[in-house]
Amino acid sequence: MNRHHYGLILAGGRGTRFWPRSRKRSAKQVLNVVGDRSLIQATVDRLAPVIPPERLWILTNEHLRDTILEQLPEIPPNQVLAEPAQRNTAPAIGLAAHILHSIDADAIMGVFPSDHVVAKPAVYRSVLKSALKGAARGHLMVVGIQPRWPETGYGYIEFPRGTLPGAAGPVPVLRFHEKPELRKAKRYVAAGHFYWNSGMFFWRADVLLEQLRRHLPRTAAILASLPRFGEDSFAEKLKEAFPLCDNISIDFAVMERADKVSGVPAGDFGWNDVGSWNAVYELLPRDAGGNVVGQDTICLDARNNLVDAPGKVVALLGVNGLIVVDTPDALLVASRDCAQRVGEILKTLEQRNREDLL
Amino acid sequence: MNRHHYGLILAGGRGTRFWPRSRKRSAKQVLNVVGDRSLIQATVDRLAPVIPPERLWILTNEHLRDTILEQLPEIPPNQVLAEPAQRNTAPAIGLAAHILHSIDADAIMGVFPSDHVVAKPAVYRSVLKSALKGAARGHLMVVGIQPRWPETGYGYIEFPRGTLPGAAGPVPVLRFHEKPELRKAKRYVAAGHFYWNSGMFFWRADVLLEQLRRHLPRTAAILASLPRFGEDSFAEKLKEAFPLCDNISIDFAVMERADKVSGVPAGDFGWNDVGSWNAVYELLPRDAGGNVVGQDTICLDARNNLVDAPGKVVALLGVNGLIVVDTPDALLVASRDCAQRVGEILKTLEQRNREDLL
Repeated sequence: MNRHHYGLILAGGRGTRFWPRSRKRSAKQVLNVVGDRSLIQATVDRLAPVIPPERLWILTNEHLRDTILEQLPEIPPNQVLAEPAQRNTAPAIGLAAHILHSIDADAIMGVFPSDHVVAKPAVYRSVLKSALKGAARGHLMVVGIQPRWPETGYGYIEFPRGTLPGAAGPVPVLRFHEKPELRKAKRYVAAGHFYWNSGMFFWRADVLLEQLRRHLPRTAAILASLPRFGEDSFAEKLKEAFPLCDNISIDFAVMERADKVSGVPAGDFGWNDVGSWNAVYELLPRDAGGNVVGQDTICLDARNNLVDAPGKVVALLGVNGLIVVDTPDALLVASRDCAQRVGEILKTLEQRNREDLL
Repeated sequence: MNRHHYGLILAGGRGTRFWPRSRKRSAKQVLNVVGDRSLIQATVDRLAPVIPPERLWILTNEHLRDTILEQLPEIPPNQVLAEPAQRNTAPAIGLAAHILHSIDADAIMGVFPSDHVVAKPAVYRSVLKSALKGAARGHLMVVGIQPRWPETGYGYIEFPRGTLPGAAGPVPVLRFHEKPELRKAKRYVAAGHFYWNSGMFFWRADVLLEQLRRHLPRTAAILASLPRFGEDSFAEKLKEAFPLCDNISIDFAVMERADKVSGVPAGDFGWNDVGSWNAVYELLPRDAGGNVVGQDTICLDARNNLVDAPGKVVALLGVNGLIVVDTPDALLVASRDCAQRVGEILKTLEQRNREDLL
């Protein structure tokens, strides 16, 4: 372990596609949808051998901070920050870089989503180490994941033709590509040197701050105007300043514009972004009927269903390919094919002024 | 109204096909599955203009008696009896005939299921009056319902060829037919003089008792040995004697064996025995998407579903032809095609010793 390695876990998302289990105060990252530990707990667990909890920082929102503090007592509470407003990833990452650099001028930071699954943590950690090495040498590093299918929901990273997964050392990134249409996605996968953008980034804090000053000067200036982290006025000033930052992703703001952007073309480390209830179905073990259900569920002529209904007996009769999620005040019954569309329900709830269910 | 007219409402059934809404203590007849009033309340309501509540008697079981007393304050509480054991319809009807005859030697009684729906109560009451007239003349009367489809779940009554619905006066019943196979049911419907057996019977109490003595002598003797209704020892003696009665239906015990069995071949009075959740779906008004749901249900690409989930927001997404019934401790998600099989779930619950959910 290197004492200059820090981790920033981004945990401000809502994960609306996990409604009704997910709510503002219990977003996807704090749910244990695929195991005994919540997704953010699992994130901290798998990072620990490389970056220990005392050097992990979490950016989240006011709704989730208490739950995260409770779930992660090993992380110093003052390192769990609630963003005063939702401002996409660039200001959040910039803020963390600002703080880390003020603490340790040699800080090297990794940025991690809080709500993904990694089935092969040992492979994952070797990827981290490659990425941290590249970052130490001044590169802006991104982790690419070898695509397993022509996914249209992810951005792609274009490495030089012939790049092989697991390549040693930083590989230059030629270009970032937005979420493609299916035809394009198929071309990317067939070409072989296009990788999924994992959302994991690594760099020296000073390098990132320099890039922000160049490409996002207003936000950089706002962050530079903040008092030193730890001073009494920090929280108050942050509350004033943060909402003024540009609402933009780090991909747009920096990665697509900067020089010396490199990546780790990673092989299979069992990555899954758990994008919907259907991903949960795919990740969990099924019974002989293809059902992912607890022992309190009765299946009669029921196949390939997912049931999440703690404390309730559920009977499935003659149904196929359903997602059933029960909570005390709301119940979802959806076709697995439509799992990506669960977020649409929240729009209807908003129209009906059911803030209590969001 | 004739002061010798009495009604016996049979309310001892469980209605397992309405699980999880129906339980031992909240059987189908006390549920308001198709309106604001429970099925037994609606039964009393529609009888009232012909047989007032003070001359209605109810036979039920220990689990349901309190709920029925609560739902029907207009019925004298001592006329709501809990059978000490479940013994099919012959002993229950015999007991009521015994009591009514001891109160009124000229009693004419109608026997009514407690869990059916009648959409045209005015037509229904004219049928009742015809049946009561036939009963007054000494006939054992049964109400036949003109079949609307070749149902295999009902028994059939065979009237003489050419019998028309709404015929005046008692029409002799040639034969009772058990639940037929589909081919036979189709023949019955095509023939035109076969009617569904409604389970509604009418007779003088003394005539029925005479028939019981002839065809079910042991049960008749047991009932005759009871003290007079109203005496202190009645309940205690009933508790001892009733379980000794023959476990047999009135159809088998009397109607299929007796002479002078007649019927009313009724036209359409909007009868429905509400045999399953699918019947509830058929009975209730649907929205444009064919869904029978409350205003707390959100339907996105969801069609032809039934939702019964009081106090809970339900979201249906991309599903079709489902029955969703939510209760605090159990949830059913079934295909409407399988509504008849809901009872099978109770067998599994019994095997799992979940008496709490029965």
